[in-house]
Amino acid sequence: MKVIPDSEFKERLAKVQEEVNSRGLDALLVHSNESDFANVRYLTDYWPLFETAGVLILKEGEPILIIGPESETFAKDRSKIPKIRKILEYRESADPEYPGVPISTFEEIFQESVPGGVNKLGIAGYSILPLAIYEAVRNAIPNAEIVRADDILVQMRTKKSPNEITLLREANHISELALGEILKAIRPGVTELQMVGVAQKAMYDNGAEYEAMPQYIFCGRGTSHAISRPSYKVIREGEMIQLGIGARVGGYSASVGRPVCLGKMPGEMRKLVQAGLDAHLKTMDWMKAGIPAKKVAEKFYNYLNDEGLSKNILYGPCHGIGMIEVEKPWIELTSQFVLEENMTFQVDTFLYTPDYGLRWENGVRVTREGVERFSEQYLEILEL
Amino acid sequence: MKVIPDSEFKERLAKVQEEVNSRGLDALLVHSNESDFANVRYLTDYWPLFETAGVLILKEGEPILIIGPESETFAKDRSKIPKIRKILEYRESADPEYPGVPISTFEEIFQESVPGGVNKLGIAGYSILPLAIYEAVRNAIPNAEIVRADDILVQMRTKKSPNEITLLREANHISELALGEILKAIRPGVTELQMVGVAQKAMYDNGAEYEAMPQYIFCGRGTSHAISRPSYKVIREGEMIQLGIGARVGGYSASVGRPVCLGKMPGEMRKLVQAGLDAHLKTMDWMKAGIPAKKVAEKFYNYLNDEGLSKNILYGPCHGIGMIEVEKPWIELTSQFVLEENMTFQVDTFLYTPDYGLRWENGVRVTREGVERFSEQYLEILEL
Repeated sequence: MKVIPDSEFKERLAKVQEEVNSRGLDALLVHSNESDFANVRYLTDYWPLFETAGVLILKEGEPILIIGPESETFAKDRSKIPKIRKILEYRESADPEYPGVPISTFEEIFQESVPGGVNKLGIAGYSILPLAIYEAVRNAIPNAEIVRADDILVQMRTKKSPNEITLLREANHISELALGEILKAIRPGVTELQMVGVAQKAMYDNGAEYEAMPQYIFCGRGTSHAISRPSYKVIREGEMIQLGIGARVGGYSASVGRPVCLGKMPGEMRKLVQAGLDAHLKTMDWMKAGIPAKKVAEKFYNYLNDEGLSKNILYGPCHGIGMIEVEKPWIELTSQFVLEENMTFQVDTFLYTPDYGLRWENGVRVTREGVERFSEQYLEILEL
Repeated sequence: MKVIPDSEFKERLAKVQEEVNSRGLDALLVHSNESDFANVRYLTDYWPLFETAGVLILKEGEPILIIGPESETFAKDRSKIPKIRKILEYRESADPEYPGVPISTFEEIFQESVPGGVNKLGIAGYSILPLAIYEAVRNAIPNAEIVRADDILVQMRTKKSPNEITLLREANHISELALGEILKAIRPGVTELQMVGVAQKAMYDNGAEYEAMPQYIFCGRGTSHAISRPSYKVIREGEMIQLGIGARVGGYSASVGRPVCLGKMPGEMRKLVQAGLDAHLKTMDWMKAGIPAKKVAEKFYNYLNDEGLSKNILYGPCHGIGMIEVEKPWIELTSQFVLEENMTFQVDTFLYTPDYGLRWENGVRVTREGVERFSEQYLEILEL
């Protein structure tokens, strides 16, 4: 299975509509862009490139996919929502003029879809909504109340359905295969970026629809970056190599993270890698449906403090995963939620020194007994 | 050469600062995100992922790179601007809480950098600026005038420097090599996505830093999409295959577009592919420094009208290229500019029918004599 079935899209849309009604909204406007594609894809299976996209869920009637002026044939072929409208503000940033292309406005769409007028509009994807789209909405409904309603989709997306779990397993399986290809190909003298090519070839050969993110393949000092991009750096023996390999299938993303060394790790490095692995495996053991999330974070911090490694912690220990490789909810000392069955997380154990960093990263599903690990391979000191 | 030299970043920053002063701005806030990375990278060489990024160019003093809370070590290693500040609204959309991470606010930044206060602020990257960042700015300077100033960077980026041209040539060369690998590997029974893996492996083997865009590898009806994504569709003999292959080097993007068929093209298809190629080659012949852009568009439309193909035109005939694969300026019937030496364009000849579409696409540099073609290979009927 490589896609969420149509029936599940229908259920999702019905549930959002129910939520729109129960909050007294006239409509919910959902926003996504090329890199933050999740909410629109979750509701329609459409994911934009170059242009952005939105979904308007009405309190009554059919939802509307909103796209830019150039994506109509693509959107018609992909979208689970048949009603599609083009609005200028969803265009690509190169800002073409589109002489002659017929487009809609929010005024027209609201008039045809909300006969009583929009008094209250919710926004999901608020943090990425462009000002230009907000202004177009505001001009169309100058007197309406506009409220943040991200939590409608966050809550729905946090606990995964059986189909979503199948896709996450598959994305992890492909990511593991790609990581395995790197382990076969890597040797002193190759560059980080050459290994990206090896990983991505393996992903597409094995059924990926896209990369989950820019691949994390860093060596030496670059491994101390929590967020980074692979470079032309040449990989050498005896230095830290961070591999975080991620494929996407059916809109669901994985990332499998392993620290690796060509040849023996220097003593201090080996100790920190082992300590990271211990904390990583323990974190997976501490997780279970019914446990308050912050208890997991407390145990993680306490364990590393007791090991004398508090100075090596950047964050931790988990963030949500699903469509985007980093999603809500995060497991932090401040977390206010309880783990529930079928929530999915990345257990992301990142330790760093001034000279290097290392990351163990595993996707897991919370179960009643503990967690299902989406990736079981290579959970050991990897000296190649 | 794989990077723009430091001296050129200094020149760019000085030129923007000059423009800030000549317009009476106190500062210019430039915005970029992961997919629309160009403006921030143009000024700093930093390009964000997960988080977004900005640059604040002041009328006096050092510019400031603004990042999200998680990218500091990455940004320090990459940014040509040493002064870096973290602001919460540049965080990733998964919206972490970052307990304990010290962050700045626009109030603090404006206070320390603009002693007289901000009376007039320009924005570049306006169409992608999130509302949440705008609100943070607005709250910090409630009485300031905020104006769109995209054109400062658009104008600078339209005419390319010798270093930029070197990188565009290299990105095109790599893209051609990747296209060549697809032509070797493609056969009936492979999927579009498998060919993505072949192309991307070749790119990273040959020096790409990233993909220019999601690769355009579509077959059958999917080729009628002007914007699309590759899928699991199995490629068959005798159908249209659209290849648009693009690599990125040093922040500069290429795309080489060729229509291909496994076996003989059916008669009507072959005629349209040949007509597209004729129009494509002629368009390159019509371009030259000193020619009004709209004259090129007029000739393109007139030629295809005379050939009886006006119903097959979606748009045309050119858009700018540089960092993003689609940039300003577009060459359209409404264009109001004159071609200048070292402007660079994608000659993008897309013709479609209800059943399929075909795209010839070439990067070119405008010269005093005509154009330099960045890609010379495979400009012929490709029946494999």
